Amino acid sequence: DSVPIKRALLSVSDKTGLVELGKALAAKNVELLSTGGTAKALRAAGLTVQDVADYTGFPEMLGGRVKTLHPKVHGGIMYVRGNAEHEASVKEAGIKGIDLVVLNLYAFEATVAKGSDFETCVENVDIGGPSMLRSSAKNHRYVTIATAPSQYAELISALNKDGCTPYSLRKKFAAAAFAHSARYDATIASWFAGQLANEPDAAPALLTRSCELSRPLKYGNNPHQKPAALYRPLGSTEPFRVRNGAPGYINMLDAFNAFQLVRELRKALDLPAAASFKHVSPAGAGLGVALNASECKAYDIADPASLTPLATAYVRARQADPLCSFGDFAALSDVVDENTALVLKKEVSDGIIAPGFEPKALEILSAKKGGKFVCVEVDPDYTPPTLEYREVYGVGFAQKRNDREITLDDVKTDEVKKGPMPPDAQRDLVLAAITAKYTQSNSICFARGGQVVGVGAGQQSRVDCVKLAGKKVATWWLRQSEDVLALPFVAGLKRQQKVNARVQYLEGGFDSYAPQEKAAFDKLFASGTCPPELTSSRRAELLGQLTGVSLASDAFFPFPDNMDVAAKFGVKYVVQAGGSVQDEAVLACARGHGMAMAMNGIRLFHH
Amino acid sequence: DSVPIKRALLSVSDKTGLVELGKALAAKNVELLSTGGTAKALRAAGLTVQDVADYTGFPEMLGGRVKTLHPKVHGGIMYVRGNAEHEASVKEAGIKGIDLVVLNLYAFEATVAKGSDFETCVENVDIGGPSMLRSSAKNHRYVTIATAPSQYAELISALNKDGCTPYSLRKKFAAAAFAHSARYDATIASWFAGQLANEPDAAPALLTRSCELSRPLKYGNNPHQKPAALYRPLGSTEPFRVRNGAPGYINMLDAFNAFQLVRELRKALDLPAAASFKHVSPAGAGLGVALNASECKAYDIADPASLTPLATAYVRARQADPLCSFGDFAALSDVVDENTALVLKKEVSDGIIAPGFEPKALEILSAKKGGKFVCVEVDPDYTPPTLEYREVYGVGFAQKRNDREITLDDVKTDEVKKGPMPPDAQRDLVLAAITAKYTQSNSICFARGGQVVGVGAGQQSRVDCVKLAGKKVATWWLRQSEDVLALPFVAGLKRQQKVNARVQYLEGGFDSYAPQEKAAFDKLFASGTCPPELTSSRRAELLGQLTGVSLASDAFFPFPDNMDVAAKFGVKYVVQAGGSVQDEAVLACARGHGMAMAMNGIRLFHH
Repeated sequence: DSVPIKRALLSVSDKTGLVELGKALAAKNVELLSTGGTAKALRAAGLTVQDVADYTGFPEMLGGRVKTLHPKVHGGIMYVRGNAEHEASVKEAGIKGIDLVVLNLYAFEATVAKGSDFETCVENVDIGGPSMLRSSAKNHRYVTIATAPSQYAELISALNKDGCTPYSLRKKFAAAAFAHSARYDATIASWFAGQLANEPDAAPALLTRSCELSRPLKYGNNPHQKPAALYRPLGSTEPFRVRNGAPGYINMLDAFNAFQLVRELRKALDLPAAASFKHVSPAGAGLGVALNASECKAYDIADPASLTPLATAYVRARQADPLCSFGDFAALSDVVDENTALVLKKEVSDGIIAPGFEPKALEILSAKKGGKFVCVEVDPDYTPPTLEYREVYGVGFAQKRNDREITLDDVKTDEVKKGPMPPDAQRDLVLAAITAKYTQSNSICFARGGQVVGVGAGQQSRVDCVKLAGKKVATWWLRQSEDVLALPFVAGLKRQQKVNARVQYLEGGFDSYAPQEKAAFDKLFASGTCPPELTSSRRAELLGQLTGVSLASDAFFPFPDNMDVAAKFGVKYVVQAGGSVQDEAVLACARGHGMAMAMNGIRLFHH
Repeated sequence: DSVPIKRALLSVSDKTGLVELGKALAAKNVELLSTGGTAKALRAAGLTVQDVADYTGFPEMLGGRVKTLHPKVHGGIMYVRGNAEHEASVKEAGIKGIDLVVLNLYAFEATVAKGSDFETCVENVDIGGPSMLRSSAKNHRYVTIATAPSQYAELISALNKDGCTPYSLRKKFAAAAFAHSARYDATIASWFAGQLANEPDAAPALLTRSCELSRPLKYGNNPHQKPAALYRPLGSTEPFRVRNGAPGYINMLDAFNAFQLVRELRKALDLPAAASFKHVSPAGAGLGVALNASECKAYDIADPASLTPLATAYVRARQADPLCSFGDFAALSDVVDENTALVLKKEVSDGIIAPGFEPKALEILSAKKGGKFVCVEVDPDYTPPTLEYREVYGVGFAQKRNDREITLDDVKTDEVKKGPMPPDAQRDLVLAAITAKYTQSNSICFARGGQVVGVGAGQQSRVDCVKLAGKKVATWWLRQSEDVLALPFVAGLKRQQKVNARVQYLEGGFDSYAPQEKAAFDKLFASGTCPPELTSSRRAELLGQLTGVSLASDAFFPFPDNMDVAAKFGVKYVVQAGGSVQDEAVLACARGHGMAMAMNGIRLFHH
């Protein structure tokens, strides 16, 4: 299985570690063959090198286009060692065995990225290199092919042992070589196909992906979906780093959707932002805007001044719908400070994604969930490729990613009064719209005071989304009422139990409870019985005090009834795409309810 | 731009059309160079062919491994025509210009598919072919490279004109050649990487995709997301055909998810099946089970006997939630008959996917929506690749697709009584579970009598899903009550208006209506006023008559309260994964409500 290295051919674009490798080879009396810049670099280090042209006896010609495309090179790589017929042929033809090929290709995309013209790009397509690389990989039973400086240490260590390479190394390196070649050709093919397209917005005729394993995952959407893994484009580094824990597939779907949301909020509003995700939709999102007194009571925050703006943003994100946020994946727009980590520490949560962690914060978070709390650090300056691709039932779907950013400019105009949107409302409208952008469609999002207060996700009818989100808004608002805050619980209930009980109280319907259900609920109260339900008139009275709410829709309203429903939950400001045949009726209905409405033409479906 | 063809090199694995092309070349006095089987085939047709070995002067050796890897071949392809230095070099070296290369590679995956061993697969890696192919494509300014028999006609037609090929053809063919090479190498690299993996369930070290444009789409999820398109693996045919209309991106997402649902229902239950999708989740699904009298009244079906089982399945799918199904994408498990087409004709719908269409049916459907109704025909026997891939924020996610099929065997055992699940319930449990499998998570699905009667999609809390779906079940059930069927509408209301008005009536809350909202609603009634809302006691009385409902959850129930909610909507049969620490409490609660429950260990998250 071990093959001694007697002769090596080196031809590299990346000269990192080349001289050290050359010296290690020379020390083992390996003959060196080389060309061009590689030969020059080796000679400059005092090594003896034979030119390939000298070996083949064929003059270097055509600007170097054919120097290694010669039987004396490829025969030397590809003959089967120990095969009598092959051995005789190579001897007769004066072919010498080449046992090691060290070769890497100049990244084609770098040529393109430089803005080179078509002719220059084509001229940069390497022919000889990939041919030798593939010859060597094919004959890896006898030949070693190294394609990256990162492999040299392992190679040198094997050589230093006995001047040989083991089969396992050759096979592994051959796999890397084929991958290097595949990636190189995929890049060229993809670029060349793009040179045929006429329209700027046309989909490429050829779509290629060449990815290497970045992180194996335990399973995919479900435990029976194995294998599952994250991938990165070959030769690239991923824009994230797992600092603690072992994230799952759905964790990572949550993480990257959630981080896009907070990153866009941060950029648009210049405030720290947070999101709380579950099942690839936000349960809530919030900005670093100080909490008011009634919020503090409802959220059980004794000392709001102790919270940093980032911690405040997470409190807001988490408190939009604390039941849905149970076991969430959190995203923060800024480097996580100790204060934010301490807030998270108290909550049942699965993980966090952020641009970084202060050491103390990482220490606190890494201790959560018995050390299993997932901490993902993400590069905030990373820009993903424009075209995104997915497969459904084996069919490939590609689209430009939704890189249209929502800004304050998108909510400046009120179409009801044909005037400016009140400045106070603009922030919440942007918050609501960006949140809707990352919510499974159809979606509706309500926001108020720098906080999302209701998300209606994944419904098929728009008005159902408004109702669903509205119900959450009502619960959020009524949680702040004295009626609810004063509920007389038995002593010793945990914070989350109280939150759950208050929401259950607000949902009402006790008369339809099964006996054991009612008994379990009654036990939570000091008197042994749940107080009577809020009457519908008291409910209406409390809801009537809610005003100044902003609403964003991920697409136009098909009918004005959506505004009637929204009005019941204090909505005064709306942003939507517009473009329905019912736009005028929707505007008229909004006017009737005293609302302002921006229509910015931006649909935000998300699937 | 036109280049005359004087000499051609042919070396093809696929001999289709080879002789015709050879003859056409000979007729234009083109010299033919060839090797092995290609030379033999051309000579057998009476053509004069020079062997490459004869031209290079280098003997064929090493089992043919290096025959074309020679400067006389690659120099002949790659020299720059008209460049004085290049022309002088080739003359001096006795190199003849090769103006046309006809070459294709034996599909590597075919070697693998044959079950060949590792050595044989490696031996099949072609080195000389890809090298010539890439040389030729690089020098396409002067050289023509044909890589598929499907290109010969265009090539011959150009030759027959003036013995030349135009630049546009050479550039287009070069793009195809690079794509051919990229695909070939991607396949090898991917296979080779798999040879390194030790564990059977391990994710591949390298993931490659090489796809060609299958169908450009107007835009992606949103109008500003251009370009967008469907792709198929290079060299494959897509498993579907668009028979009418121009489907959009979300249409196709709906179509392929919906078709998987009905295909799996058909297979599991041996009954025609239908689904009605909106926003990539089912609004409803149904089986070809005859409608009962109250369903006929509520669904406005005068003559149920006239419906084929397939048409009945669609009526059921559509009537689970007719408001959500407005503008749906339909999926049918069987070839669409005229009767089913006539049912669809009356509904506002965007498109349909089915294994085929009877001619009359296609005619009827193609006339819908002013001719824009989308009809997609899909191969029912198609099996997608095991691993599916997607990109989120530029990060690649791969997982085994959810190919675990749900069958009657998965619902055979009642864990409450530790006995058999009643046979009547099994069908509805399978229907509900398969529907949940293709619903955005979290999801809950209720079914009864061969019909989905409530889907709770895309929520972050499980009990929220049960409540959401339960509300739909209540509406579905109460629509069949005399109270609702007898509502006295004004004359002339359309069918859909009546459906909408009945649902609005059932949703109640008239006392919180804005005046204009109430006025608009009152106008729908003959008396000029909406009848009083259903009292909560009447509502409870009617709901109390609902029983025998089946429920499927896409994951375990974290708390027993889910059963309390389900019980309010007539649930008697449940299927769920199980595996919660609360399983015993959930079972006890189910027992208290007289329910049977299957726990099959299959989680069905869908994102």
